Amino acid sequence: MLNIGIAGLGRMGQRHAEQLALRTRGARLVAACSPLVAERTWARERLGVTALYDEFGALLRDANVQAVAIATPTTLHAEQAIAALEAGKHVFCEKPLALDVASCERVEAVARKHPQLVAMVGFVRRFDAHYQEAKAQVDAGCIGKPFLIRSQSCDKNDPDGFFVRFAPTSGGIFLDCSVHDIVVARWMLGGQPKAQRVFASGTIALHPGLADCGDVDNGLAIVEFEGGARAQFYASRTFAHGFEASTEIIGTAGSASVGLGAHRDRVQSRDAAGVHHAVLADFIERFDDAFQREMAAFVGACKGEAPVPLTLSDATEATRIGVAITKSLHSGQVEVVI
Amino acid sequence: MLNIGIAGLGRMGQRHAEQLALRTRGARLVAACSPLVAERTWARERLGVTALYDEFGALLRDANVQAVAIATPTTLHAEQAIAALEAGKHVFCEKPLALDVASCERVEAVARKHPQLVAMVGFVRRFDAHYQEAKAQVDAGCIGKPFLIRSQSCDKNDPDGFFVRFAPTSGGIFLDCSVHDIVVARWMLGGQPKAQRVFASGTIALHPGLADCGDVDNGLAIVEFEGGARAQFYASRTFAHGFEASTEIIGTAGSASVGLGAHRDRVQSRDAAGVHHAVLADFIERFDDAFQREMAAFVGACKGEAPVPLTLSDATEATRIGVAITKSLHSGQVEVVI
Amino acid sequence: MLNIGIAGLGRMGQRHAEQLALRTRGARLVAACSPLVAERTWARERLGVTALYDEFGALLRDANVQAVAIATPTTLHAEQAIAALEAGKHVFCEKPLALDVASCERVEAVARKHPQLVAMVGFVRRFDAHYQEAKAQVDAGCIGKPFLIRSQSCDKNDPDGFFVRFAPTSGGIFLDCSVHDIVVARWMLGGQPKAQRVFASGTIALHPGLADCGDVDNGLAIVEFEGGARAQFYASRTFAHGFEASTEIIGTAGSASVGLGAHRDRVQSRDAAGVHHAVLADFIERFDDAFQREMAAFVGACKGEAPVPLTLSDATEATRIGVAITKSLHSGQVEVVI
Amino acid sequence: MLNIGIAGLGRMGQRHAEQLALRTRGARLVAACSPLVAERTWARERLGVTALYDEFGALLRDANVQAVAIATPTTLHAEQAIAALEAGKHVFCEKPLALDVASCERVEAVARKHPQLVAMVGFVRRFDAHYQEAKAQVDAGCIGKPFLIRSQSCDKNDPDGFFVRFAPTSGGIFLDCSVHDIVVARWMLGGQPKAQRVFASGTIALHPGLADCGDVDNGLAIVEFEGGARAQFYASRTFAHGFEASTEIIGTAGSASVGLGAHRDRVQSRDAAGVHHAVLADFIERFDDAFQREMAAFVGACKGEAPVPLTLSDATEATRIGVAITKSLHSGQVEVVI
Repeated sequence: MLNIGIAGLGRMGQRHAEQLALRTRGARLVAACSPLVAERTWARERLGVTALYDEFGALLRDANVQAVAIATPTTLHAEQAIAALEAGKHVFCEKPLALDVASCERVEAVARKHPQLVAMVGFVRRFDAHYQEAKAQVDAGCIGKPFLIRSQSCDKNDPDGFFVRFAPTSGGIFLDCSVHDIVVARWMLGGQPKAQRVFASGTIALHPGLADCGDVDNGLAIVEFEGGARAQFYASRTFAHGFEASTEIIGTAGSASVGLGAHRDRVQSRDAAGVHHAVLADFIERFDDAFQREMAAFVGACKGEAPVPLTLSDATEATRIGVAITKSLHSGQVEVVI
Repeated sequence: MLNIGIAGLGRMGQRHAEQLALRTRGARLVAACSPLVAERTWARERLGVTALYDEFGALLRDANVQAVAIATPTTLHAEQAIAALEAGKHVFCEKPLALDVASCERVEAVARKHPQLVAMVGFVRRFDAHYQEAKAQVDAGCIGKPFLIRSQSCDKNDPDGFFVRFAPTSGGIFLDCSVHDIVVARWMLGGQPKAQRVFASGTIALHPGLADCGDVDNGLAIVEFEGGARAQFYASRTFAHGFEASTEIIGTAGSASVGLGAHRDRVQSRDAAGVHHAVLADFIERFDDAFQREMAAFVGACKGEAPVPLTLSDATEATRIGVAITKSLHSGQVEVVI
Repeated sequence: MLNIGIAGLGRMGQRHAEQLALRTRGARLVAACSPLVAERTWARERLGVTALYDEFGALLRDANVQAVAIATPTTLHAEQAIAALEAGKHVFCEKPLALDVASCERVEAVARKHPQLVAMVGFVRRFDAHYQEAKAQVDAGCIGKPFLIRSQSCDKNDPDGFFVRFAPTSGGIFLDCSVHDIVVARWMLGGQPKAQRVFASGTIALHPGLADCGDVDNGLAIVEFEGGARAQFYASRTFAHGFEASTEIIGTAGSASVGLGAHRDRVQSRDAAGVHHAVLADFIERFDDAFQREMAAFVGACKGEAPVPLTLSDATEATRIGVAITKSLHSGQVEVVI
Repeated sequence: MLNIGIAGLGRMGQRHAEQLALRTRGARLVAACSPLVAERTWARERLGVTALYDEFGALLRDANVQAVAIATPTTLHAEQAIAALEAGKHVFCEKPLALDVASCERVEAVARKHPQLVAMVGFVRRFDAHYQEAKAQVDAGCIGKPFLIRSQSCDKNDPDGFFVRFAPTSGGIFLDCSVHDIVVARWMLGGQPKAQRVFASGTIALHPGLADCGDVDNGLAIVEFEGGARAQFYASRTFAHGFEASTEIIGTAGSASVGLGAHRDRVQSRDAAGVHHAVLADFIERFDDAFQREMAAFVGACKGEAPVPLTLSDATEATRIGVAITKSLHSGQVEVVI
């Protein structure tokens, strides 16, 4: 059994804590860290966690903890990951690793000094069975050589504007949402190609408050990869009907897609207004199984059973491209990815 | 140009009249017959037909008329078809040919005496491009040997109850609706197999007035064909969302289907209630193109260009099976098809 | 923790054993019973079960066992369920409870004497999230009053003919497959209506060996319920493309369906041959989650948390209808359900 | 009856000639002009056209001709449209009106001097029933305020490379294909908004010969409209499975789409490889009905029955945006639309 401690018990932290405590075989959630009393109480009462800390350093000093899952605010990710590695703990870090490339590279440098430790960033679509099936088709040559990705991450509109309040620290719509599409694009194209240039544009359809931090609620981007491949991304915060994450991988002999059609389940309704089906509510509903597989992959890697399928370098590249796209959104010009 | 006269200017009659006058190349609608002044006026003003008659015999005496399209009430079909053939006219007759087998056979006997004349019954699905594509796949061996048909003809509920008033003379839901599925089933199975036994059951969901004439608004039937093939039919008058005619042809190596999904067009909508699409309103909207191709096939056959793809015998068999199904609905027992 | 012992470690037994040992919270698989050494070894090595028995009586004498899951051949179900109840154990029994009504009623009688014990039959679709969503729509009145069920259970063809060898003891295609549709139909119609009459027909498309035991590989049935509701069932062993379990619930104001379209996952492929998607392989792939929820419901009921949603009487009625359908297949006549 | 003469009898010219001669009520194809003897022979033998000319001026001098349909090479469109207007003929011109804005504006200027003459450019999607239904939903407020268009025009790969040979005079993939999406986008957004800035990128996946003229076989573009609306276009020459033209119109309260799913007809197939459906072969198969409605609209406008729904100015704007996108493809930079 791998003893894991979790840092951060917000929305994603609680999700990961439940995965680790209740659904991840071979792992034990032994410790949790949060500055909030209510969250620590939740961990004790809901999950039976007894080692509870109000600051990250204390968690790292818990000798019983072999691995740390970081689900704190993004601005803390890189430094906490570094501290955990230096404390000899395996690290799972929620995405994105950091909102700037330099921080990502600092984590990479520290990780290189600790090759025996696992350091993994949670790009959950890599662990989704549907994306994996599409990737298997691509790798089997079913679509010829892939050269174009069209991918979208679109959230159901939240009238409460949670993400508007979150926007100043989220890195913006591209670093928060499209970063998933970026990771998927490089994976599906094969060989993890480097991006060379990007262009982005966006608009505010429903949430004027985003203008204050230069963000948009609907964003479009084009990415040019070395070798000629291209990607087109769309991110939205304002879908009326639900959450839609979909990806098309277009190749010289065909294409594969994941998630088109947006059905929540296998139910269809017919009434005087026509034929209907429901749509998934959010990424948590969509990727519930994938979150479980993601954590299983992390635990397996910590135990030496199989390497993690994505590297810290993949996370760094995702940030690099996301930063360039965001810069293009602000400058209105094509930006070189550096 | 083939000169055609039409008999009957009700719902289907007007439809066929418009096809012949406006959309059928190589044909000319030169005469029309209806007992109603208003309908004759419509034919003159809307379609420019000048030879107008109030009784069928007069239409047959019009030497300018080479072919007759019969869209009168079903009870008149057989005798009018016979009279037209004996008057030396090609005959197109709206389905069903008759509600009893003996009448069908009488028409067949007369037609055999006039082999130079075309006699065709309007089973429109045989002329639908989608059904023809499925048939082509079946004939190409794509599904192996077909052995099971599941087919449905379901109308959008009509709160006005038109068909309730029509029920006493329609022959009931199976002879009125499922007769299309019967024709399709025998065609798709290949070799126009004979039916041996049938069983039917039904229920009245919305239209209690149907009980008076022993009819139902939702009917189910099973047909056993010689050689082991089977068919399952469903007919409904009460669909809330629109018209759905669909057929599955199941074979030893696969299956083909026509019409599943029930989309009206290529438009899809997404809003807070989910994903939606509209459904076709009725058989006229669904088979608009097929009606055109049907009449073109009739005209072509009259001109000797190509034989009609279905025979009077097919129409007789459809009535024979439909009669047996209806008898089973009433008796509650399995009925032998004789 | 509820201590459970399992009887039978064949295909379904292994599945349930894994569920209980690895995925069912609040339960512990503490014992297993199989006449085969290899299966007992599997339980010990794969699942760590230490109390292993070669006969059912020994399992019942294990005082540590509080509940028994029965996944033995169908012919043993009823007597083992009775013995387990008399031994004071909760009972989960794989479907069908028995192939004859009298046996079902004997189990019911014994269960009535032990009201403190849970006795549940594993009709897994009742625990499937998609079926539950459709049922919720029906109960919410979205389709008006339901009056017609069309439901199918169709397996991918198995060239090895496993089920042909299994046929003599399976009860035939309707008791083995359609029994699920029967349970779903009565549930969806509301009020668990009684069936009054049935008719069945079938054909052998690919497996002539079935003729020896009067079975077919494709079967059709119509069921008439009291109050006017009707159901139409289709069961097949010969689908080329995969497993399809689907159900339509048709009401006076609309309809709901589960499982139409038969997509395995959210992946779609496009190549020179058109647009494609894969289909589920079998019921295990389709109902994986539902099996987990089913066992969780059983464990919860044993612990007194919530009653089991289906009763032994529902299982008896399913057998009663299935038996009548099978009798109709053999007699070729309408059969009264008694 | 409106007497029409056609100029150009290539692929599109023959199509329009057949529409006019065989399927357009109220019009008569009385003259045709082509420099090729074979094409003129085709017009005489296939369509019975007797007034045949080898140069455009002669067609204009034919006093019997009231309206001219121009389907010549794009480079001739503008000058021929001007000449026809000055000769007092109504003008239907196949798209695009011209590959440069100045030419479009010259046509507009001449047209303004002849307000009694119809001058219409053939953007066929405006006449497609599916696009019109989506537009009706948008206009009815079903999706709130539209602010984002995603639209694609993707051709089945032609191994013969017809369009490679055609590329030097086509204006490139954006002016040839995406021009349809541009017209649709401005229509759907409402108010025919002006574009301000564009960015484009592309790649050559299968046809290296395109590099010679600076074209690509897969192109992506983003367009920024005044008022905040955005559009994303994708054009491809290399789809393996068939032709796909689809458009999503995204609004503040929902979205509508046309053409997603790419089914050719209502037929679906199931076999050992899964579930399949065919895809449309090309734009001619897809827009067959729309071409008919387009010509009917032109004829109706010439007769004064209803104005043409799109103006020459719409055609000019489409060229203006298409030129800017093409310039961006070549410069690699954001281009201002002027």
